[in-house]
Amino acid sequence: MIVREKPRLWDLLTAMRGSVVPHIVRPLLFLTGFALVVVWLDHFTPYVPKLETSAYATFGIGLSLFLGFRNNAAYDRWWEARKLWGGMLADMRSLARETDVFVPDAAERRTILHLAIAFVHAHRLHLRGQKLTAESDVPETARALAGTPHPPCTALDRMNSVIARAHREGRIDGFGARALTTRMSSIALQQAGCERIFNTPLPFVYSLLIYRTTFLYCMMLPFALNSATGWMTPIFVGVVAYMFLGLAEVTEELAHPFGLQPNGLALDAICRAVEISFAPHLGTEPPPPLRPVNYYLI
Amino acid sequence: MIVREKPRLWDLLTAMRGSVVPHIVRPLLFLTGFALVVVWLDHFTPYVPKLETSAYATFGIGLSLFLGFRNNAAYDRWWEARKLWGGMLADMRSLARETDVFVPDAAERRTILHLAIAFVHAHRLHLRGQKLTAESDVPETARALAGTPHPPCTALDRMNSVIARAHREGRIDGFGARALTTRMSSIALQQAGCERIFNTPLPFVYSLLIYRTTFLYCMMLPFALNSATGWMTPIFVGVVAYMFLGLAEVTEELAHPFGLQPNGLALDAICRAVEISFAPHLGTEPPPPLRPVNYYLI
Amino acid sequence: MIVREKPRLWDLLTAMRGSVVPHIVRPLLFLTGFALVVVWLDHFTPYVPKLETSAYATFGIGLSLFLGFRNNAAYDRWWEARKLWGGMLADMRSLARETDVFVPDAAERRTILHLAIAFVHAHRLHLRGQKLTAESDVPETARALAGTPHPPCTALDRMNSVIARAHREGRIDGFGARALTTRMSSIALQQAGCERIFNTPLPFVYSLLIYRTTFLYCMMLPFALNSATGWMTPIFVGVVAYMFLGLAEVTEELAHPFGLQPNGLALDAICRAVEISFAPHLGTEPPPPLRPVNYYLI
Amino acid sequence: MIVREKPRLWDLLTAMRGSVVPHIVRPLLFLTGFALVVVWLDHFTPYVPKLETSAYATFGIGLSLFLGFRNNAAYDRWWEARKLWGGMLADMRSLARETDVFVPDAAERRTILHLAIAFVHAHRLHLRGQKLTAESDVPETARALAGTPHPPCTALDRMNSVIARAHREGRIDGFGARALTTRMSSIALQQAGCERIFNTPLPFVYSLLIYRTTFLYCMMLPFALNSATGWMTPIFVGVVAYMFLGLAEVTEELAHPFGLQPNGLALDAICRAVEISFAPHLGTEPPPPLRPVNYYLI
Amino acid sequence: MIVREKPRLWDLLTAMRGSVVPHIVRPLLFLTGFALVVVWLDHFTPYVPKLETSAYATFGIGLSLFLGFRNNAAYDRWWEARKLWGGMLADMRSLARETDVFVPDAAERRTILHLAIAFVHAHRLHLRGQKLTAESDVPETARALAGTPHPPCTALDRMNSVIARAHREGRIDGFGARALTTRMSSIALQQAGCERIFNTPLPFVYSLLIYRTTFLYCMMLPFALNSATGWMTPIFVGVVAYMFLGLAEVTEELAHPFGLQPNGLALDAICRAVEISFAPHLGTEPPPPLRPVNYYLI
Repeated sequence: MIVREKPRLWDLLTAMRGSVVPHIVRPLLFLTGFALVVVWLDHFTPYVPKLETSAYATFGIGLSLFLGFRNNAAYDRWWEARKLWGGMLADMRSLARETDVFVPDAAERRTILHLAIAFVHAHRLHLRGQKLTAESDVPETARALAGTPHPPCTALDRMNSVIARAHREGRIDGFGARALTTRMSSIALQQAGCERIFNTPLPFVYSLLIYRTTFLYCMMLPFALNSATGWMTPIFVGVVAYMFLGLAEVTEELAHPFGLQPNGLALDAICRAVEISFAPHLGTEPPPPLRPVNYYLI
Repeated sequence: MIVREKPRLWDLLTAMRGSVVPHIVRPLLFLTGFALVVVWLDHFTPYVPKLETSAYATFGIGLSLFLGFRNNAAYDRWWEARKLWGGMLADMRSLARETDVFVPDAAERRTILHLAIAFVHAHRLHLRGQKLTAESDVPETARALAGTPHPPCTALDRMNSVIARAHREGRIDGFGARALTTRMSSIALQQAGCERIFNTPLPFVYSLLIYRTTFLYCMMLPFALNSATGWMTPIFVGVVAYMFLGLAEVTEELAHPFGLQPNGLALDAICRAVEISFAPHLGTEPPPPLRPVNYYLI
Repeated sequence: MIVREKPRLWDLLTAMRGSVVPHIVRPLLFLTGFALVVVWLDHFTPYVPKLETSAYATFGIGLSLFLGFRNNAAYDRWWEARKLWGGMLADMRSLARETDVFVPDAAERRTILHLAIAFVHAHRLHLRGQKLTAESDVPETARALAGTPHPPCTALDRMNSVIARAHREGRIDGFGARALTTRMSSIALQQAGCERIFNTPLPFVYSLLIYRTTFLYCMMLPFALNSATGWMTPIFVGVVAYMFLGLAEVTEELAHPFGLQPNGLALDAICRAVEISFAPHLGTEPPPPLRPVNYYLI
Repeated sequence: MIVREKPRLWDLLTAMRGSVVPHIVRPLLFLTGFALVVVWLDHFTPYVPKLETSAYATFGIGLSLFLGFRNNAAYDRWWEARKLWGGMLADMRSLARETDVFVPDAAERRTILHLAIAFVHAHRLHLRGQKLTAESDVPETARALAGTPHPPCTALDRMNSVIARAHREGRIDGFGARALTTRMSSIALQQAGCERIFNTPLPFVYSLLIYRTTFLYCMMLPFALNSATGWMTPIFVGVVAYMFLGLAEVTEELAHPFGLQPNGLALDAICRAVEISFAPHLGTEPPPPLRPVNYYLI
Repeated sequence: MIVREKPRLWDLLTAMRGSVVPHIVRPLLFLTGFALVVVWLDHFTPYVPKLETSAYATFGIGLSLFLGFRNNAAYDRWWEARKLWGGMLADMRSLARETDVFVPDAAERRTILHLAIAFVHAHRLHLRGQKLTAESDVPETARALAGTPHPPCTALDRMNSVIARAHREGRIDGFGARALTTRMSSIALQQAGCERIFNTPLPFVYSLLIYRTTFLYCMMLPFALNSATGWMTPIFVGVVAYMFLGLAEVTEELAHPFGLQPNGLALDAICRAVEISFAPHLGTEPPPPLRPVNYYLI
């Protein structure tokens, strides 16, 4: 995730990092070139048809509907994903505090918290499509989950086994068991929410409709503008295409909020925040928070 | 549900699978043909009236209002349905964990979880309008529900009877009974949410308004464009009709999120995820997750 | 509520049932006639002023703002009302299950469930503005509420008295009392939500703004279109008026979701669903679900 | 709050009560007069500049963004305020029922309910910016709060003291204490929600942007329309200004939902509904519900 | 936060305080100057190209999509932040009441409440990016947190330790422990929500797209308007730029709701409200509420 103060205007206008320009440079060049060809043909031949610009506005309606909708839907996914991880952080802090209150055995408290740390890392890797192996760069307890069918669920199941055993053997009373299972179910809800966003892309048909309409729009634009704007047409087409293809690209990125691309969420930093919050409860030194490197926080 | 990575641009522009083109090809041909007739008549007779294009924009306002609204409403239904099934998955995992904590009798634990599996399959068939029979392709315990008036409710009622009996006979204490009934009521809420979406279509009147306005719009379009775009008019009309009828068709599909059409939700895959999550609690081998076949996951 | 599969295109274009045309036929005729007069006057006299169409677009902005907002607000009311009744159904099912778990006395269980049935019927009549009398077509227990100041609240109060007495006399323990009062408060929340929608119409001032602006818009339209569209102007005005007045009428209907008009919610069917869900708990035969008659479900 | 059935069309077009016309009549006259001066000057002098109308559309974009946003934000505040009071009513009814179940002492039950009535009245006055004095037109118990720093909080604190004492002295058991403190915290949440809306206006900067842009828009309108619409320009400007200033005024009203203006919420009626709901629990005769006077319900 | 009654119209049109004009005066001057140069060049040379204004409308679509989206997203952040602090206030009041009910030891009650006051101040400083030191202008107990890695979390952890110890030593029973840990977890959720807004800016790529498109739009405007509006063009461009850059600037401010800028939230006033609410529970004199100074409340 890119984290930077509002840059000065000049930086805003020229920044390349975080810009979508590199991703859409090829269709941009194609559309600009196409416009150039149209203008050139129109200049030397009488065969290029004209479109009235106001007739053209019809397309704009459809395009703004499609892009506006998709932008909202993609941003909602991104922000909901962030909310789920924020709720997860809160759940983890509450879990640590509730074990202090309801689990009298210090060793069991530590086991639960270490498994919780394993869970957040396994969950993070799962959402990023990375396989958890014995070599993954995660804490010891998380690596112990390598090879299980669904590592995050296994971590939660193991936490639950600790609680179940302690409850049956009388070390956690009914109130504690209710408090901790309620917490576990809240964590499971956040987890399932993230898996939902991860497993269910935006309906594919929108991608088809949007890219097709955007391309048709941009390819018809020279016929509409040509007679009025002449040789400036390719520039104009390029700018319009930048605007619409850029937005389409942004929505594509935001709709997958768990990736490592510039606008992906900083899951590593949140996992670290969990570790920092657990430190006083584990009696360990808190690790330093992750800081953005070159405005980029993973 | 279609699940595929963002395809390359060329695939986006030409893909037929997942496209709505096949569903709207007949009205598309009709409208394009109608435009052709209008242009032809206008070419040879003086009787074809003209519409000023800017006057025409008035329609665009209405059309974008109707389509924009309906698209949002349909997508919200689709996404809410997905959220409800995501919450159901979380509830199922929490149910399995809470039985571990609060139900000491292993046989009763297994009975509850098997009935829960029966529930999710019966619920899935119910939402897809499929009758649950003794031959349905569902687990044994679900088939046992065949013939009951409302199989999903019966499954939950049977789970509840197990809990009620165990509570009365003292095998589940008050805390456990509260935990499990709270979980059951959360499941019932997700279930009723799905039934709500299944039973309550978008208000019928919107379909009337949208299809009528779209047709009027597309049939008036040749009169508006004719003088400016000439023989290109039918192409133009075809593209506009593709855009608007395509969106209307998409919203029709998304508004019924439990169907088996390309944009329907992958309920089978979620039922399988429940079975995978239950495996460690039942002491069985987890079945493999469902994978998309030809980009298509049911 | 109209419940029908997506009809064939021809039916969509000609259906009258569920259409708003009958409700707006008088203003439609008035506006079309007015346009005819303007065109006729313009044809024979030089005194009819002209409006430039692009100047006219200014109005479209306002109109689309008003109508778009009101449509969303009205649909949200309708859908929220449906959600509340869906939540009520879930609460009722959970209530039946929780009485199984926490209320050991079968007679008290039956009393509670019969009062719950009385509640949903009384609540339905209340929301439809119908007085509950000893002759109302509702179950016996509901008719017993006739004459009380607020029948739905009385039903809930009586349920509560049963619970309170049983708790004081030790037949329901603390856990059960907590479970049942929590359920009662959830029902009360759904009830208050419905009463909120019933008692609080959309702010009246919007009706004024919308109807006034729509009329002004449609009455100015002939002056704007006249010179371009000539004798087709009345048709054009009629179509535009259909679109905008139709939407205004739809929003009026949806904003009152509890009525018996074609787009009202099928409250009878939901009350029946509650009775079906209660049957196994009461040990009675479930009544058949209500089916749409002529596509219409009450 | 204005409560009336959908009036007949003629009433809609002429109603003054509930209309915003009286509030915006001065700027309306100013803008219309200004347009008249512009037209007059243009008629007799060559110095009046012309604006092309399509260039003018640029403004419409900004204006519709600002007004559309503000309208949604204001309505959301209004509707959220209504939801909070609806939730409060449900909480009050649940409180009455829970005291029946969990508070065995009848005198303590009555004390709690009387303090709850005092709370809703004190809360209502607080949100309307009215000081609670010993002469306020509220029930006896509410007047007893006069002079305290924050009367609604004091009422809740006193209710809480009753519960705390009864719990410590063993008249309310642990389950009851949990049930009642949970209810109290739900009430506190609704209360804080209302105070949030009351204390935090919409960001002031939007008022500046909207009023400035609206005025600029309406003052430039004559220069754009003049050549096309001639002496009809002032009428046109007046209608456009009515539409936009009217909407701005409506949003101003709705953004303060607790006021006594025609679109303010009917808080008195809700407070009365609380009293009616409490009557059976207090053993008193329920007061009659408040009815709208001249379509107006406070 | 600026708090003022709706000012008179004249004040609205001329107010500078709270206006964004000072922040955007430089790009405004630049764009106006640029327009002046274009007009001047066009007046004396034939080389300045013309853009047709209706072609130009294409840009408006994109711009309104971007600005409309960003405005909604920014306002939602601001309002959600306010909701979280409102929920925090409610939680604090409920905490005070629950300690009265469930914590019999007066000294422990006071300790918990003083730590809660420390928490809200530490949380406020954290969200404003201010370091908590032994010299910070906060209550004594908050200053005691200076030097800890995460002062707000430390405050909550210390509250939790008090509860845990009292529970283990039998001074708080199971019901109380559940009530208080539930309250703590609600506070932790509100806290994590605020940290989410604080740590996760709006995706950077939107800033790029918006500022670039706005600048391109405003720099092309003179070419489009020039021939129609002549020497009035710079004024026109200035007004349009004010509208769009102003909105962009507003969204930038609202997207950071915890700052001290004119539209930042009044966190100091809410912290004070917590202290006022605690006073009766601590047996101290409530401090006076904070009042706006020169319409400005911090």
